[in-house]
Amino acid sequence: MAQATLYERVRQRTAVAVTERDVERVLTALYAAGSAPEGGAPDAGAGAGADVDVWTLMGACDVPLVALPALLEELERDGLLVRRGDRLALTPKGLRLVEERGWAPSSPRQLRCPACRGRGLDLGAEPFKGLLKRFREVVRGRPEPQQAYDQGYVTPETTIARLALMRRRGDLAGKRLIVLGDDDLLGLAAALEGSARRIVVLELDPQLVAFMERARERWGLTSLEIHRHDLRDPLPDELVGAFDTFATDPIESLPGLLLFLSRGLCALRGRGSAGHFGLTRHEASPEKWLKLQRWLTARGACITDCLDRFNEYLNWPYWEAMRARRWLRIESPPQSVWYRSTQIRLELVEPQAYPNEPYRGALEDEELATT
Amino acid sequence: MAQATLYERVRQRTAVAVTERDVERVLTALYAAGSAPEGGAPDAGAGAGADVDVWTLMGACDVPLVALPALLEELERDGLLVRRGDRLALTPKGLRLVEERGWAPSSPRQLRCPACRGRGLDLGAEPFKGLLKRFREVVRGRPEPQQAYDQGYVTPETTIARLALMRRRGDLAGKRLIVLGDDDLLGLAAALEGSARRIVVLELDPQLVAFMERARERWGLTSLEIHRHDLRDPLPDELVGAFDTFATDPIESLPGLLLFLSRGLCALRGRGSAGHFGLTRHEASPEKWLKLQRWLTARGACITDCLDRFNEYLNWPYWEAMRARRWLRIESPPQSVWYRSTQIRLELVEPQAYPNEPYRGALEDEELATT
Repeated sequence: MAQATLYERVRQRTAVAVTERDVERVLTALYAAGSAPEGGAPDAGAGAGADVDVWTLMGACDVPLVALPALLEELERDGLLVRRGDRLALTPKGLRLVEERGWAPSSPRQLRCPACRGRGLDLGAEPFKGLLKRFREVVRGRPEPQQAYDQGYVTPETTIARLALMRRRGDLAGKRLIVLGDDDLLGLAAALEGSARRIVVLELDPQLVAFMERARERWGLTSLEIHRHDLRDPLPDELVGAFDTFATDPIESLPGLLLFLSRGLCALRGRGSAGHFGLTRHEASPEKWLKLQRWLTARGACITDCLDRFNEYLNWPYWEAMRARRWLRIESPPQSVWYRSTQIRLELVEPQAYPNEPYRGALEDEELATT
Repeated sequence: MAQATLYERVRQRTAVAVTERDVERVLTALYAAGSAPEGGAPDAGAGAGADVDVWTLMGACDVPLVALPALLEELERDGLLVRRGDRLALTPKGLRLVEERGWAPSSPRQLRCPACRGRGLDLGAEPFKGLLKRFREVVRGRPEPQQAYDQGYVTPETTIARLALMRRRGDLAGKRLIVLGDDDLLGLAAALEGSARRIVVLELDPQLVAFMERARERWGLTSLEIHRHDLRDPLPDELVGAFDTFATDPIESLPGLLLFLSRGLCALRGRGSAGHFGLTRHEASPEKWLKLQRWLTARGACITDCLDRFNEYLNWPYWEAMRARRWLRIESPPQSVWYRSTQIRLELVEPQAYPNEPYRGALEDEELATT
């Protein structure tokens, strides 16, 4: 079989392991894409053979981006797909393989609840009804994402959905919340929502800090505390062990993830405190997910929620400079949301003394694709 | 403050730790319950002070059932709630505490998407449209749950939703599925759905096995293989390493969980294979969740999905005999679904040689509440 050798060839060329599942993910994403109506089932007849742009495939197939260029090339070499410019399509041979294997199209949109976009939350209910509209108004004119700070922010709906998840889990109302890096402006949204007892935002980018400070004054969100802070530096003493909840959307290199999450753990008050963070499949391989979960459980934290494709990111202006674009030789900018992440909630079960030391190591790894 | 000593008193009386969060969970569940319309926000004015039956509270508060009797008694002793027969209500003092702390009501129903009951899946889309109706027909006349086998089955909607989750994650279509213990009749549902390449069910209860065999013949579901098997015995050789996906809903004692999941891991083919299982907060404390996650990650499996309240269980006939009823001295049967669990999906990242030995130890622990 072509596949048996194919992913061995890919494996030799990439930093992360690729399995038959990844071959299936790419081929079925191509099989399904282009024809699936939002929330509905794809029409196999119409979808088969339709071409898809590379961004859409990147967003649909759940394969680490670092492995995707070699995988696509080897699939093309084996005659399973064809690439023309920025567009990809299954060949008749690829189509036959998907059908013979019985891999039904599994578009990410397929089977997703259209009412809540798969998050399971009703944002039309109070206290979130109306909040989204006010949040959009407050963040108007916000600074654009900067690559130097690994920025790239989520849709306003995502920010509000994160708050709704916190609220539903008892992590927001009457609680002390710290946001570690906040280009999503979650702190402003929480201040607007109004149920938290304390909200502290730590942010490195002076432009973002200035924007948040102006918004706080303009909209009277005086409960919000904003500190300019580099997370590589230890948390200030008064923030250690002082929060019920942390929220962060870390840089996804393994050292970056562990740095952001260790600051988060350090900020928590103790047993029953919670952390919320995002993690992609684009920049974090299954190996990285596993390492992270070993690290968290070793530190006494267990995962209580893990919500696939919860976070949707708006496209950022530096798309041309990002690694994944160069790796995949993409010519044109993305046309719609393609970068998504899983939202994870952890609960502190066996608190420990978490170190609060400066970090001066690297914040990169091979899998980072948006730097 | 009353709470500072209260949960220390509870701690002395129970097998699992109780935190201020658990006090909050009980009080806010009482605060919110009784007034929250399905999927909507509770009306604090109407809800405050309304009384709730013990079953509803058990289902709403996410506190391990083994700790709940002592917690309720100590909360009553401190004058925060009052119990009359099977019904509980906040006192004015309890009400004031919830309001002073800013713990807004966080009913489990609050903020839940009404269209998908919070699961995020659209069961109205093909191939699941119609499947639920056929499944209800096929399972008509099924045997009632038996306490001897720790049975208690989920709603038909839940069974179909589990299949939809598998399908969406690429764990069903064209795949080999093994179901380890199947009082939910997931195997029959998967055979009806029809996209799996192989479906094997292992079940101990001869009545269930006979029912499944009859249904297979009657409805022509010949793809379904049913074996009578005790999971304490090793998996038959031909089933070891032979499946892309396992599904199970284990007995929730720690040894039971590890036994069922170790059989599941043993059945998987390798990297990229997946497991789906349920886990409650009723019978599994946060400590047990953490131990389980440490065990899984040590065995090379990472969690990719963790969906709170995904599984809803129909009430079983042996409610009078269950521990939780005796612990809580409940007089009358539950009126609606109260027992729920989180559906968890794991992915095998670093496969190991998993032992396949007989198990002759206990299958109980202190936290089991439905035995």
